[in-house]
Amino acid sequence: MTDDIRPFEEIRLLFANLPPLDAASAAAARARDAELTKPPGALGRLEEIALWLAAAQGKATPTIERPLAAIFAGNHGVAARGVSAFPADVTQQMLANFTSGGAAINQLCKTFDIGLKVFELALERPTRDFTEAAAMDEREAAATLAYGMEAVDGGVDLLVVGEMGIGNTTSAAAIYAALYGGPAELWVGRGTGVDDAGLARKRAAVDAALEQHAGHLSDPLEILRRLGGREIAAMMGAMLAARLNRIPVVLDGFVVCAAAALLQALHGDALAHCVAGHVSAEGAHARALERLGKKPLLDLGMRLGEGSGAAVAVGVIRAALACHTGMATFASAGVSGKSA
Amino acid sequence: MTDDIRPFEEIRLLFANLPPLDAASAAAARARDAELTKPPGALGRLEEIALWLAAAQGKATPTIERPLAAIFAGNHGVAARGVSAFPADVTQQMLANFTSGGAAINQLCKTFDIGLKVFELALERPTRDFTEAAAMDEREAAATLAYGMEAVDGGVDLLVVGEMGIGNTTSAAAIYAALYGGPAELWVGRGTGVDDAGLARKRAAVDAALEQHAGHLSDPLEILRRLGGREIAAMMGAMLAARLNRIPVVLDGFVVCAAAALLQALHGDALAHCVAGHVSAEGAHARALERLGKKPLLDLGMRLGEGSGAAVAVGVIRAALACHTGMATFASAGVSGKSA
Repeated sequence: MTDDIRPFEEIRLLFANLPPLDAASAAAARARDAELTKPPGALGRLEEIALWLAAAQGKATPTIERPLAAIFAGNHGVAARGVSAFPADVTQQMLANFTSGGAAINQLCKTFDIGLKVFELALERPTRDFTEAAAMDEREAAATLAYGMEAVDGGVDLLVVGEMGIGNTTSAAAIYAALYGGPAELWVGRGTGVDDAGLARKRAAVDAALEQHAGHLSDPLEILRRLGGREIAAMMGAMLAARLNRIPVVLDGFVVCAAAALLQALHGDALAHCVAGHVSAEGAHARALERLGKKPLLDLGMRLGEGSGAAVAVGVIRAALACHTGMATFASAGVSGKSA
Repeated sequence: MTDDIRPFEEIRLLFANLPPLDAASAAAARARDAELTKPPGALGRLEEIALWLAAAQGKATPTIERPLAAIFAGNHGVAARGVSAFPADVTQQMLANFTSGGAAINQLCKTFDIGLKVFELALERPTRDFTEAAAMDEREAAATLAYGMEAVDGGVDLLVVGEMGIGNTTSAAAIYAALYGGPAELWVGRGTGVDDAGLARKRAAVDAALEQHAGHLSDPLEILRRLGGREIAAMMGAMLAARLNRIPVVLDGFVVCAAAALLQALHGDALAHCVAGHVSAEGAHARALERLGKKPLLDLGMRLGEGSGAAVAVGVIRAALACHTGMATFASAGVSGKSA
């Protein structure tokens, strides 16, 4: 890398022009909500969601006509340390399962009429083991983030971001510990289901990483490069592009939220267009959501990744929009309003 | 009423023959779940739901091909006491809104492909004000419960039960207080949004009812007759018929669960075929669900009735079934299993 390229600086520039959410569209949606044939507030979070969709899309009448689940897959050098219950080959095998339609995310996308695109990120070349070296160099991290930005087509009107990558809950835990402080055990959980020995190896890997990279973890993009993975870089790009294109985003679980946390650390308002689809069974996900200031829509004990929890939440979001746009008003339906 | 008819005794007889849930179908579903391409348990409650559907339908491979929302509407004499934020005419007006497709439940049924039937229960003739007399006589309560049973056609494979009735959260609160003990304030909430004065009138009405009927509240069918309403009787019938026909039921909010609580009081296992769709924003609903032993699927701050929370939960149930029936197995997809 030479001084004149400085790829991270180009990324930082993008944050200078984040469009704010659209208050006028939200106000129009709020005015309509007040006229619908229900007691004020009776649809609870469904009402909030409709207003948020309006604000994030910048449309008084929001739409969900082209929702997309974008799933990014990467392989991690740290997987060689036995931090997962599954062998690293499973990343590639699950990609084939996505393609042939056999994974959970395929069924969920069918159920809620969500488009599905899967992005494979150099699976044959895992990132470096971050307990020993930076996972990526700056050029690669920046290029992968840029690739994630390109993955989001501007016609999409709701984006689910998801991931697949054996070892990536270890990477995510290291990112949280670097951003929010340790110890490792505060952020490390069982992921896909490691046993006690595996859990100890995960904690050790995160502790080793924090020590290896100590003194270099104040910049979120450095954290990404040193402790992250390609799918995490690409998801950051996808979420950033969504914001630039006024596309609301549904956050999934522990790993997706690590990418979101890096964005938020880069710009305090970077996640205004994101809703937390669910809180997963990975213990520290609830803690991460608190740090993000996001209250999850669902709490179903899921911990699969693949965007699966967010995809189920799309059902709730569709319900919210259907009520908001389809319900009659008190005036049109001839229903008496609330007593004074 | 003459001694030889005894309509409540005929209803009690039905509880002698409740079919148990089907353990063999649940076991078959559990065996399939263990083979699906995901870490064991990673779909959380979606896995539980698939097994419960199998057990409740008595099918190793459950289906959701003819889901139905059955909404029952009744008027309550107690509404004249100013216990609601809305005038009693709204019950009838909302029925017209259901028919013309403008209510929240219409949009939710469209979103999740649920059939919708609305049953109007003698709206022109409200039940008696239960602070002064029994709401219904035994013949009427029993006949309305039987009517609710007839409302459920055996071809339905998932049932949402919902209600509309100005004043009915006061009736439901009285039922809970009678079943589980008071004081009234433990069970009375703001319903559709009464102000403080309205809340005080609701509490006073429930207290007056408990005093008026003291000594006659040990039998759940007597509680129904004295403190209930027609929609509550009919929902009991619908849920009972569902059980007899192996149709799983999605419970909605505070009023629906009062009907469910009466069924459970009549037979401890009467709700095995029911899942709690959501916990509503009506404060005491969470307490009622605890008494029913049901953990809600959703917690979205909804408090609309009409079956609306349960209808949103159908989205989650559809997601659960889609994963269970549509996912590939480790063997079929060539995915490596969990390490030993």
